[in-house]
Amino acid sequence: MSDSKITRPFDMLNNAINKQVLIQLKENVQIRGKLKAFDVHMNIVIEDAEEIIDGKMKTKYVETLVRGDNIVWITV
Amino acid sequence: MSDSKITRPFDMLNNAINKQVLIQLKENVQIRGKLKAFDVHMNIVIEDAEEIIDGKMKTKYVETLVRGDNIVWITV
Amino acid sequence: MSDSKITRPFDMLNNAINKQVLIQLKENVQIRGKLKAFDVHMNIVIEDAEEIIDGKMKTKYVETLVRGDNIVWITV
Amino acid sequence: MSDSKITRPFDMLNNAINKQVLIQLKENVQIRGKLKAFDVHMNIVIEDAEEIIDGKMKTKYVETLVRGDNIVWITV
Amino acid sequence: MSDSKITRPFDMLNNAINKQVLIQLKENVQIRGKLKAFDVHMNIVIEDAEEIIDGKMKTKYVETLVRGDNIVWITV
Amino acid sequence: MSDSKITRPFDMLNNAINKQVLIQLKENVQIRGKLKAFDVHMNIVIEDAEEIIDGKMKTKYVETLVRGDNIVWITV
Amino acid sequence: MSDSKITRPFDMLNNAINKQVLIQLKENVQIRGKLKAFDVHMNIVIEDAEEIIDGKMKTKYVETLVRGDNIVWITV
Repeated sequence: MSDSKITRPFDMLNNAINKQVLIQLKENVQIRGKLKAFDVHMNIVIEDAEEIIDGKMKTKYVETLVRGDNIVWITV
Repeated sequence: MSDSKITRPFDMLNNAINKQVLIQLKENVQIRGKLKAFDVHMNIVIEDAEEIIDGKMKTKYVETLVRGDNIVWITV
Repeated sequence: MSDSKITRPFDMLNNAINKQVLIQLKENVQIRGKLKAFDVHMNIVIEDAEEIIDGKMKTKYVETLVRGDNIVWITV
Repeated sequence: MSDSKITRPFDMLNNAINKQVLIQLKENVQIRGKLKAFDVHMNIVIEDAEEIIDGKMKTKYVETLVRGDNIVWITV
Repeated sequence: MSDSKITRPFDMLNNAINKQVLIQLKENVQIRGKLKAFDVHMNIVIEDAEEIIDGKMKTKYVETLVRGDNIVWITV
Repeated sequence: MSDSKITRPFDMLNNAINKQVLIQLKENVQIRGKLKAFDVHMNIVIEDAEEIIDGKMKTKYVETLVRGDNIVWITV
Repeated sequence: MSDSKITRPFDMLNNAINKQVLIQLKENVQIRGKLKAFDVHMNIVIEDAEEIIDGKMKTKYVETLVRGDNIVWITV
Protein backbone atom coordinates (compact mmCIF):
# COMPACT_ATOMS: atom_id res chain seq x y z
CA MET A 1 0.00 0.00 0.00
CA SER A 2 3.09 2.19 0.28
CA ASP A 3 3.40 2.51 -3.51
CA SER A 4 1.04 5.53 -3.59
CA LYS A 5 2.84 8.65 -2.43
CA ILE A 6 1.54 10.04 0.88
CA THR A 7 2.08 13.68 1.66
CA ARG A 8 -0.83 14.22 4.05
CA PRO A 9 -2.17 11.73 6.63
CA PHE A 10 -5.59 11.44 4.98
CA ASP A 11 -3.92 10.35 1.72
CA MET A 12 -3.39 7.02 3.45
CA LEU A 13 -7.16 6.66 3.97
CA ASN A 14 -7.84 7.67 0.37
CA ASN A 15 -5.48 4.93 -0.83
CA ALA A 16 -7.21 2.42 1.45
CA ILE A 17 -10.77 2.83 0.13
CA ASN A 18 -12.30 -0.63 -0.52
CA LYS A 19 -9.36 -2.32 1.16
CA GLN A 20 -9.11 -4.09 4.54
CA VAL A 21 -8.16 -1.85 7.48
CA LEU A 22 -7.76 -2.37 11.22
CA ILE A 23 -8.97 0.39 13.54
CA GLN A 24 -7.70 0.58 17.11
CA LEU A 25 -10.25 2.20 19.43
CA LYS A 26 -9.73 3.27 23.02
CA GLU A 27 -10.11 0.62 25.75
CA ASN A 28 -8.68 -2.31 23.74
CA VAL A 29 -11.42 -2.59 21.11
CA GLN A 30 -10.59 -3.04 17.43
CA ILE A 31 -12.76 -2.91 14.32
CA ARG A 32 -11.57 -4.77 11.21
CA GLY A 33 -13.15 -4.67 7.75
CA LYS A 34 -13.37 -2.91 4.40
CA LEU A 35 -13.02 0.89 4.40
CA LYS A 36 -15.99 2.42 2.56
CA ALA A 37 -15.97 6.12 3.52
CA PHE A 38 -14.38 8.68 5.83
CA ASP A 39 -14.63 12.41 6.52
CA VAL A 40 -12.38 15.15 7.97
CA HIS A 41 -13.37 14.20 11.54
CA MET A 42 -12.03 10.67 10.83
CA ASN A 43 -15.57 9.27 11.08
CA ILE A 44 -15.27 6.01 9.15
CA VAL A 45 -17.68 3.50 7.59
CA ILE A 46 -16.51 -0.12 7.61
CA GLU A 47 -18.26 -2.86 5.60
CA ASP A 48 -18.29 -6.47 6.89
CA ALA A 49 -16.99 -5.18 10.19
CA GLU A 50 -15.60 -7.46 12.88
CA GLU A 51 -15.46 -6.16 16.44
CA ILE A 52 -12.39 -7.52 18.26
CA ILE A 53 -12.22 -7.14 22.05
CA ASP A 54 -9.00 -8.04 23.89
CA GLY A 55 -7.82 -9.77 20.74
CA LYS A 56 -10.91 -12.02 20.32
CA MET A 57 -13.43 -11.62 17.49
CA LYS A 58 -16.74 -10.83 19.20
CA THR A 59 -19.38 -9.71 16.67
CA LYS A 60 -19.79 -9.14 12.92
CA TYR A 61 -21.78 -6.26 11.41
CA VAL A 62 -22.77 -5.59 7.80
CA GLU A 63 -21.87 -1.94 8.12
CA THR A 64 -20.54 0.16 10.99
CA LEU A 65 -19.97 3.89 11.34
CA VAL A 66 -17.08 4.50 13.74
CA ARG A 67 -16.97 7.94 15.35
CA GLY A 68 -13.59 9.56 14.72
CA ASP A 69 -12.79 10.75 18.21
CA ASN A 70 -12.66 7.18 19.55
CA ILE A 71 -9.89 6.20 17.14
CA VAL A 72 -6.30 5.75 18.34
CA TRP A 73 -4.80 4.52 15.05
CA ILE A 74 -5.77 2.95 11.73
CA THR A 75 -3.52 0.53 9.92
CA VAL A 76 -3.58 -1.04 6.46
CA MET B 1 -28.35 -1.89 3.50
CA SER B 2 -25.15 -1.83 1.44
CA ASP B 3 -27.09 -1.39 -1.84
CA SER B 4 -27.15 2.43 -1.44
CA LYS B 5 -23.81 3.90 -2.40
CA ILE B 6 -21.93 5.48 0.51
CA THR B 7 -19.34 8.12 -0.20
CA ARG B 8 -19.48 10.00 3.11
CA PRO B 9 -19.97 8.48 6.58
CA PHE B 10 -23.27 10.29 7.19
CA ASP B 11 -24.72 8.72 4.04
CA MET B 12 -24.95 5.53 6.07
CA LEU B 13 -27.18 7.30 8.61
CA ASN B 14 -29.30 8.80 5.85
CA ASN B 15 -29.88 5.32 4.41
CA ALA B 16 -30.80 4.01 7.86
CA ILE B 17 -33.64 6.44 8.63
CA ASN B 18 -36.68 4.49 9.93
CA LYS B 19 -34.61 1.33 10.18
CA GLN B 20 -33.25 -0.57 13.20
CA VAL B 21 -29.79 0.51 14.36
CA LEU B 22 -27.54 -0.44 17.26
CA ILE B 23 -25.55 2.34 18.96
CA GLN B 24 -22.49 1.49 21.05
CA LEU B 25 -21.91 4.06 23.79
CA LYS B 26 -18.91 4.36 26.03
CA GLU B 27 -18.76 2.17 29.17
CA ASN B 28 -20.49 -0.87 27.65
CA VAL B 29 -23.96 0.62 27.13
CA GLN B 30 -25.87 0.08 23.91
CA ILE B 31 -29.08 1.66 22.57
CA ARG B 32 -31.11 -0.29 20.00
CA GLY B 33 -34.14 0.96 18.10
CA LYS B 34 -35.47 2.80 15.06
CA LEU B 35 -33.41 5.74 13.78
CA LYS B 36 -35.66 8.81 13.48
CA ALA B 37 -33.27 11.78 13.18
CA PHE B 38 -29.63 12.82 13.41
CA ASP B 39 -27.57 15.98 13.01
CA VAL B 40 -23.95 16.89 12.16
CA HIS B 41 -22.87 16.37 15.79
CA MET B 42 -24.15 12.76 15.52
CA ASN B 43 -26.92 13.55 18.03
CA ILE B 44 -29.47 10.85 17.29
CA VAL B 45 -33.16 10.24 18.07
CA ILE B 46 -34.16 6.59 18.50
CA GLU B 47 -37.80 5.46 18.64
CA ASP B 48 -38.79 2.39 20.71
CA ALA B 49 -35.34 2.46 22.26
CA GLU B 50 -33.94 -0.42 24.29
CA GLU B 51 -31.06 0.29 26.65
CA ILE B 52 -28.68 -2.68 26.82
CA ILE B 53 -26.09 -2.78 29.62
CA ASP B 54 -23.37 -5.46 29.60
CA GLY B 55 -25.38 -7.29 26.97
CA LYS B 56 -28.67 -7.38 28.95
CA MET B 57 -31.78 -5.43 27.96
CA LYS B 58 -32.47 -3.07 30.86
CA THR B 59 -35.11 -0.47 29.97
CA LYS B 60 -37.38 0.53 27.06
CA TYR B 61 -38.15 4.13 26.12
CA VAL B 62 -40.63 5.54 23.62
CA GLU B 63 -38.11 8.03 22.32
CA THR B 64 -34.51 8.79 23.26
CA LEU B 65 -32.15 11.54 22.16
CA VAL B 66 -28.57 10.23 22.32
CA ARG B 67 -25.85 12.88 22.54
CA GLY B 68 -23.32 12.40 19.76
CA ASP B 69 -20.12 12.65 21.74
CA ASN B 70 -20.95 9.52 23.76
CA ILE B 71 -21.13 7.35 20.64
CA VAL B 72 -18.37 4.88 19.76
CA TRP B 73 -20.01 3.32 16.73
CA ILE B 74 -23.39 2.82 15.08
CA THR B 75 -24.24 -0.30 13.12
CA VAL B 76 -27.13 -1.28 10.86
CA MET C 1 -44.97 12.14 22.05
CA SER C 2 -44.21 10.50 18.72
CA ASP C 3 -47.22 12.22 17.05
CA SER C 4 -45.13 15.38 16.36
CA LYS C 5 -42.88 14.80 13.36
CA ILE C 6 -39.18 14.80 14.21
CA THR C 7 -36.70 15.62 11.49
CA ARG C 8 -33.87 16.97 13.64
CA PRO C 9 -32.81 15.70 17.09
CA PHE C 10 -33.64 18.97 18.84
CA ASP C 11 -37.23 18.76 17.58
CA MET C 12 -37.69 16.08 20.23
CA LEU C 13 -36.70 18.59 22.94
CA ASN C 14 -39.00 21.23 21.48
CA ASN C 15 -41.91 18.80 21.64
CA ALA C 16 -41.03 17.95 25.25
CA ILE C 17 -41.17 21.48 26.71
CA ASN C 18 -43.24 21.43 29.94
CA LYS C 19 -43.32 17.64 29.91
CA GLN C 20 -41.54 15.08 32.10
CA VAL C 21 -38.14 13.96 30.85
CA LEU C 22 -35.40 11.68 32.19
CA ILE C 23 -31.79 12.73 31.65
CA GLN C 24 -29.01 10.16 31.89
CA LEU C 25 -25.73 11.74 33.00
CA LYS C 26 -22.32 10.13 33.06
CA GLU C 27 -21.40 7.98 36.10
CA ASN C 28 -24.87 6.56 36.71
CA VAL C 29 -26.66 9.75 37.75
CA GLN C 30 -30.10 10.65 36.38
CA ILE C 31 -32.16 13.83 36.62
CA ARG C 32 -35.95 13.57 36.25
CA GLY C 33 -38.39 16.45 36.03
CA LYS C 34 -40.20 18.94 33.82
CA LEU C 35 -38.23 20.34 30.84
CA LYS C 36 -38.36 24.16 30.94
CA ALA C 37 -35.60 25.32 28.56
CA PHE C 38 -32.65 24.13 26.47
CA ASP C 39 -30.06 25.62 24.13
CA VAL C 40 -27.86 24.43 21.24
CA HIS C 41 -25.23 23.09 23.68
CA MET C 42 -27.94 20.86 25.19
CA ASN C 43 -27.79 22.83 28.45
CA ILE C 44 -31.16 22.09 30.01
CA VAL C 45 -33.31 23.57 32.80
CA ILE C 46 -35.43 21.08 34.73
CA GLU C 47 -38.19 22.16 37.13
CA ASP C 48 -39.03 20.00 40.18
CA ALA C 49 -35.90 18.01 39.52
CA GLU C 50 -35.16 14.69 41.19
CA GLU C 51 -31.58 13.48 41.29
CA ILE C 52 -31.41 9.69 41.00
CA ILE C 53 -28.13 7.94 41.84
CA ASP C 54 -27.72 4.21 41.12
CA GLY C 55 -31.49 4.04 40.65
CA LYS C 56 -32.40 5.63 44.03
CA MET C 57 -34.02 9.06 44.37
CA LYS C 58 -31.54 11.14 46.35
CA THR C 59 -32.48 14.84 46.34
CA LYS C 60 -35.18 17.17 44.99
CA TYR C 61 -34.50 20.65 43.62
CA VAL C 62 -36.92 23.41 42.61
CA GLU C 63 -34.91 24.16 39.49
CA THR C 64 -31.70 22.70 38.06
CA LEU C 65 -29.55 23.74 35.12
CA VAL C 66 -27.82 20.65 33.68
CA ARG C 67 -24.69 21.32 31.62
CA GLY C 68 -25.02 19.73 28.19
CA ASP C 69 -21.68 18.01 27.95
CA ASN C 70 -22.50 15.71 30.89
CA ILE C 71 -25.55 14.28 29.15
CA VAL C 72 -25.54 10.76 27.68
CA TRP C 73 -29.17 10.63 26.61
CA ILE C 74 -32.56 12.24 27.28
CA THR C 75 -35.79 10.31 27.09
CA VAL C 76 -39.45 11.29 27.14
CA MET D 1 -37.38 31.36 41.82
CA SER D 2 -39.72 29.86 39.24
CA ASP D 3 -41.80 33.08 39.09
CA SER D 4 -39.44 34.61 36.49
CA LYS D 5 -40.11 33.12 33.07
CA ILE D 6 -37.24 31.00 31.73
CA THR D 7 -36.94 30.51 28.00
CA ARG D 8 -33.20 29.90 27.76
CA PRO D 9 -31.04 27.97 30.26
CA PHE D 10 -28.91 30.99 31.17
CA ASP D 11 -32.04 32.92 32.18
CA MET D 12 -32.01 30.75 35.29
CA LEU D 13 -28.54 32.04 36.17
CA ASN D 14 -29.60 35.63 35.50
CA ASN D 15 -32.50 35.22 37.92
CA ALA D 16 -30.16 33.73 40.54
CA ILE D 17 -27.65 36.62 40.73
CA ASN D 18 -27.01 37.47 44.43
CA LYS D 19 -28.90 34.38 45.54
CA GLN D 20 -27.69 31.10 47.04
CA VAL D 21 -26.85 28.38 44.53
CA LEU D 22 -25.42 24.86 44.77
CA ILE D 23 -22.97 23.76 42.07
CA GLN D 24 -22.31 20.07 41.48
CA LEU D 25 -18.81 19.45 40.14
CA LYS D 26 -17.41 16.22 38.80
CA GLU D 27 -16.02 13.68 41.32
CA ASN D 28 -18.52 14.38 44.11
CA VAL D 29 -17.47 17.95 44.97
CA GLN D 30 -20.04 20.71 45.49
CA ILE D 31 -19.65 24.48 45.86
CA ARG D 32 -22.38 26.38 47.70
CA GLY D 33 -22.67 30.16 48.04
CA LYS D 34 -23.93 33.41 46.54
CA LEU D 35 -23.84 33.71 42.74
CA LYS D 36 -22.00 36.91 41.79
CA ALA D 37 -21.16 36.54 38.09
CA PHE D 38 -21.14 34.08 35.18
CA ASP D 39 -20.22 34.06 31.50
CA VAL D 40 -21.17 32.07 28.38
CA HIS D 41 -18.69 29.31 29.24
CA MET D 42 -20.55 28.86 32.56
CA ASN D 43 -17.52 30.13 34.47
CA ILE D 44 -19.05 31.26 37.75
CA VAL D 45 -17.98 33.46 40.67
CA ILE D 46 -19.35 32.43 44.06
CA GLU D 47 -19.10 34.66 47.15
CA ASP D 48 -18.81 33.12 50.65
CA ALA D 49 -18.21 29.77 48.99
CA GLU D 50 -18.35 26.48 50.87
CA GLU D 51 -16.61 23.48 49.35
CA ILE D 52 -18.52 20.28 50.13
CA ILE D 53 -16.80 16.93 49.50
CA ASP D 54 -18.78 13.68 49.81
CA GLY D 55 -21.51 15.68 51.53
CA LYS D 56 -19.27 17.22 54.23
CA MET D 57 -18.42 20.93 54.38
CA LYS D 58 -14.64 21.12 54.00
CA THR D 59 -13.46 24.69 53.43
CA LYS D 60 -14.85 28.23 53.17
CA TYR D 61 -13.56 30.84 50.72
CA VAL D 62 -14.38 34.55 50.42
CA GLU D 63 -14.63 34.30 46.66
CA THR D 64 -14.19 31.43 44.21
CA LEU D 65 -14.12 31.33 40.43
CA VAL D 66 -15.41 27.93 39.25
CA ARG D 67 -14.36 26.90 35.73
CA GLY D 68 -17.43 26.05 33.66
CA ASP D 69 -16.30 22.78 32.16
CA ASN D 70 -16.14 21.10 35.58
CA ILE D 71 -19.81 21.76 36.28
CA VAL D 72 -22.40 18.97 36.12
CA TRP D 73 -25.39 20.98 37.29
CA ILE D 74 -26.35 24.14 39.17
CA THR D 75 -29.43 24.35 41.33
CA VAL D 76 -31.22 27.21 43.07
CA MET E 1 -11.25 41.44 47.78
CA SER E 2 -14.99 41.71 47.43
CA ASP E 3 -14.87 45.55 47.51
CA SER E 4 -14.25 45.71 43.73
CA LYS E 5 -17.48 45.13 41.84
CA ILE E 6 -17.52 41.89 39.82
CA THR E 7 -19.84 41.63 36.86
CA ARG E 8 -17.92 39.05 34.81
CA PRO E 9 -15.96 36.06 36.18
CA PHE E 10 -12.61 37.29 34.86
CA ASP E 11 -13.04 40.55 36.82
CA MET E 12 -12.18 38.48 39.88
CA LEU E 13 -8.83 37.55 38.32
CA ASN E 14 -8.18 41.14 37.33
CA ASN E 15 -8.73 42.23 40.93
CA ALA E 16 -6.39 39.49 42.16
CA ILE E 17 -3.30 40.47 40.13
CA ASN E 18 -0.24 40.52 42.46
CA LYS E 19 -2.24 38.93 45.26
CA GLN E 20 -2.15 35.41 46.73
CA VAL E 21 -4.47 32.90 45.08
CA LEU E 22 -5.12 29.19 45.51
CA ILE E 23 -5.74 27.12 42.35
CA GLN E 24 -7.46 23.75 42.59
CA LEU E 25 -6.38 21.40 39.82
CA LYS E 26 -7.86 18.04 38.93
CA GLU E 27 -6.68 14.97 40.89
CA ASN E 28 -6.23 16.73 44.25
CA VAL E 29 -3.33 19.02 43.33
CA GLN E 30 -3.29 22.69 44.35
CA ILE E 31 -1.00 25.56 43.33
CA ARG E 32 -0.69 28.52 45.73
CA GLY E 33 1.15 31.77 45.08
CA LYS E 34 1.02 35.27 43.64
CA LEU E 35 -1.08 35.78 40.50
CA LYS E 36 1.05 37.48 37.82
CA ALA E 37 -0.84 36.99 34.55
CA PHE E 38 -3.80 35.20 32.96
CA ASP E 39 -5.46 34.94 29.55
CA VAL E 40 -8.92 34.10 28.16
CA HIS E 41 -8.16 30.35 28.30
CA MET E 42 -7.55 30.75 32.06
CA ASN E 43 -3.85 29.95 31.55
CA ILE E 44 -2.27 31.49 34.66
CA VAL E 45 1.24 32.48 35.75
CA ILE E 46 1.95 32.12 39.49
CA GLU E 47 5.06 33.57 41.14
CA ASP E 48 6.61 31.86 44.20
CA ALA E 49 4.37 28.89 43.52
CA GLU E 50 3.84 26.10 46.03
CA GLU E 51 2.56 22.77 44.75
CA ILE E 52 0.27 21.12 47.31
CA ILE E 53 -0.63 17.43 46.85
CA ASP E 54 -3.26 15.82 49.09
CA GLY E 55 -2.99 18.85 51.35
CA LYS E 56 0.82 18.67 51.84
CA MET E 57 3.25 21.25 50.43
CA LYS E 58 5.48 19.33 48.03
CA THR E 59 7.62 21.68 45.91
CA LYS E 60 8.28 25.40 45.45
CA TYR E 61 8.86 27.05 42.07
CA VAL E 62 9.97 30.60 41.21
CA GLU E 63 7.40 30.83 38.45
CA THR E 64 4.80 28.41 37.10
CA LEU E 65 2.50 28.58 34.10
CA VAL E 66 -0.68 26.59 34.84
CA ARG E 67 -2.65 25.44 31.80
CA GLY E 68 -6.25 26.61 32.05
CA ASP E 69 -8.04 23.40 31.19
CA ASN E 70 -6.66 21.65 34.29
CA ILE E 71 -8.24 24.19 36.64
CA VAL E 72 -11.32 23.33 38.71
CA TRP E 73 -11.53 26.56 40.69
CA ILE E 74 -9.46 29.56 41.78
CA THR E 75 -9.98 31.27 45.09
CA VAL E 76 -8.66 34.49 46.62
CA MET F 1 18.64 16.29 14.18
CA SER F 2 19.26 19.48 16.13
CA ASP F 3 21.35 20.99 13.30
CA SER F 4 18.19 22.38 11.58
CA LYS F 5 16.97 25.50 13.32
CA ILE F 6 13.60 25.09 15.08
CA THR F 7 11.48 28.14 15.74
CA ARG F 8 8.03 26.49 15.80
CA PRO F 9 7.19 23.04 17.22
CA PHE F 10 6.10 21.61 13.87
CA ASP F 11 9.52 22.46 12.38
CA MET F 12 10.77 19.46 14.34
CA LEU F 13 8.32 17.20 12.48
CA ASN F 14 9.28 18.74 9.15
CA ASN F 15 12.94 17.96 9.84
CA ALA F 16 12.03 14.38 10.80
CA ILE F 17 10.24 13.37 7.57
CA ASN F 18 11.58 9.96 6.39
CA LYS F 19 13.44 9.50 9.66
CA GLN F 20 12.77 7.21 12.63
CA VAL F 21 10.54 8.67 15.35
CA LEU F 22 9.06 7.35 18.58
CA ILE F 23 5.50 8.39 19.47
CA GLN F 24 4.26 8.13 23.05
CA LEU F 25 0.51 7.57 23.20
CA LYS F 26 -1.70 7.66 26.27
CA GLU F 27 -1.94 4.50 28.42
CA ASN F 28 1.67 3.35 27.92
CA VAL F 29 1.54 2.55 24.20
CA GLN F 30 4.30 3.64 21.83
CA ILE F 31 4.54 3.60 18.03
CA ARG F 32 8.00 3.52 16.45
CA GLY F 33 8.81 3.84 12.75
CA LYS F 34 9.52 6.14 9.83
CA LEU F 35 7.62 9.46 9.74
CA LYS F 36 5.88 9.81 6.37
CA ALA F 37 3.31 12.58 6.83
CA PHE F 38 1.65 14.81 9.41
CA ASP F 39 -0.96 17.59 9.52
CA VAL F 40 -1.86 20.51 11.79
CA HIS F 41 -3.88 18.23 14.10
CA MET F 42 -0.69 16.16 14.64
CA ASN F 43 -2.27 13.22 12.80
CA ILE F 44 0.78 11.23 11.72
CA VAL F 45 1.50 8.45 9.22
CA ILE F 46 4.24 6.01 10.24
CA GLU F 47 5.75 3.47 7.81
CA ASP F 48 7.05 0.10 9.09
CA ALA F 49 5.37 0.85 12.40
CA GLU F 50 6.06 -1.14 15.56
CA GLU F 51 3.50 -1.01 18.36
CA ILE F 52 5.20 -1.18 21.76
CA ILE F 53 3.04 -1.86 24.84
CA ASP F 54 4.58 -1.57 28.33
CA GLY F 55 8.00 -1.53 26.67
CA LYS F 56 7.52 -4.77 24.65
CA MET F 57 7.25 -4.85 20.85
CA LYS F 58 3.82 -6.27 20.11
CA THR F 59 2.88 -5.90 16.44
CA LYS F 60 4.33 -4.57 13.17
CA TYR F 61 2.29 -2.72 10.55
CA VAL F 62 3.23 -1.61 7.02
CA GLU F 63 1.60 1.74 7.54
CA THR F 64 -0.28 3.31 10.45
CA LEU F 65 -2.19 6.57 10.77
CA VAL F 66 -2.00 7.79 14.38
CA ARG F 67 -4.73 10.23 15.44
CA GLY F 68 -3.17 13.38 16.86
CA ASP F 69 -5.21 13.75 20.00
CA ASN F 70 -3.86 10.48 21.45
CA ILE F 71 -0.27 11.70 21.30
CA VAL F 72 1.60 12.73 24.46
CA TRP F 73 4.99 13.38 22.87
CA ILE F 74 7.06 12.57 19.77
CA THR F 75 10.80 12.18 19.90
CA VAL F 76 13.51 11.85 17.25
CA MET G 1 13.65 34.75 35.44
CA SER G 2 11.22 37.11 37.12
CA ASP G 3 13.20 40.19 36.00
CA SER G 4 11.38 40.27 32.62
CA LYS G 5 7.90 41.76 33.04
CA ILE G 6 5.09 39.26 32.41
CA THR G 7 1.69 40.56 31.40
CA ARG G 8 0.41 37.52 29.49
CA PRO G 9 1.04 33.85 30.37
CA PHE G 10 2.98 33.12 27.16
CA ASP G 11 5.45 35.90 28.01
CA MET G 12 6.85 33.46 30.55
CA LEU G 13 7.57 30.95 27.79
CA ASN G 14 9.12 33.64 25.60
CA ASN G 15 11.48 34.57 28.45
CA ALA G 16 12.38 30.89 28.93
CA ILE G 17 13.57 30.13 25.37
CA ASN G 18 16.92 28.29 25.52
CA LYS G 19 16.60 27.87 29.30
CA GLN G 20 15.86 24.80 31.41
CA VAL G 21 12.18 24.14 32.09
CA LEU G 22 10.23 21.39 33.85
CA ILE G 23 6.93 20.28 32.30
CA GLN G 24 4.36 18.44 34.40
CA LEU G 25 2.22 16.12 32.28
CA LYS G 26 -0.87 14.24 33.35
CA GLU G 27 -0.41 10.89 35.15
CA ASN G 28 2.76 11.83 37.06
CA VAL G 29 5.14 12.17 34.10
CA GLN G 30 7.54 15.10 33.82
CA ILE G 31 9.77 16.28 30.95
CA ARG G 32 12.84 18.35 31.81
CA GLY G 33 15.17 20.07 29.36
CA LYS G 34 15.92 23.16 27.30
CA LEU G 35 12.92 25.00 25.81
CA LYS G 36 13.47 25.42 22.06
CA ALA G 37 10.05 26.33 20.64
CA PHE G 38 6.35 26.63 21.50
CA ASP G 39 3.11 27.62 19.78
CA VAL G 40 -0.32 28.95 20.79
CA HIS G 41 -1.57 25.42 21.56
CA MET G 42 1.31 25.11 24.09
CA ASN G 43 2.95 22.43 21.91
CA ILE G 44 6.57 22.58 23.08
CA VAL G 45 9.92 21.35 21.76
CA ILE G 46 12.45 20.37 24.43
CA GLU G 47 16.13 19.71 23.63
CA ASP G 48 18.13 17.19 25.69
CA ALA G 49 14.87 16.03 27.24
CA GLU G 50 14.72 13.81 30.30
CA GLU G 51 11.52 11.87 30.96
CA ILE G 52 10.83 11.57 34.69
CA ILE G 53 8.20 9.07 35.87
CA ASP G 54 7.13 9.03 39.53
CA GLY G 55 10.14 11.21 40.30
CA LYS G 56 12.73 8.89 38.67
CA MET G 57 14.67 9.79 35.52
CA LYS G 58 13.71 7.15 32.95
CA THR G 59 14.90 8.07 29.44
CA LYS G 60 16.82 10.83 27.66
CA TYR G 61 15.94 12.13 24.19
CA VAL G 62 17.83 14.51 21.88
CA GLU G 63 14.63 16.35 21.03
CA THR G 64 11.00 15.90 22.07
CA LEU G 65 7.81 17.57 20.90
CA VAL G 66 5.29 17.63 23.77
CA ARG G 67 1.65 18.02 22.76
CA GLY G 68 0.10 20.98 24.58
CA ASP G 69 -3.10 19.39 25.79
CA ASN G 70 -1.20 16.92 28.01
CA ILE G 71 0.46 19.71 29.98
CA VAL G 72 -0.65 20.56 33.53
CA TRP G 73 1.99 23.19 34.29
CA ILE G 74 5.40 24.41 33.15
CA THR G 75 7.92 25.85 35.56
CA VAL G 76 11.25 27.66 35.12
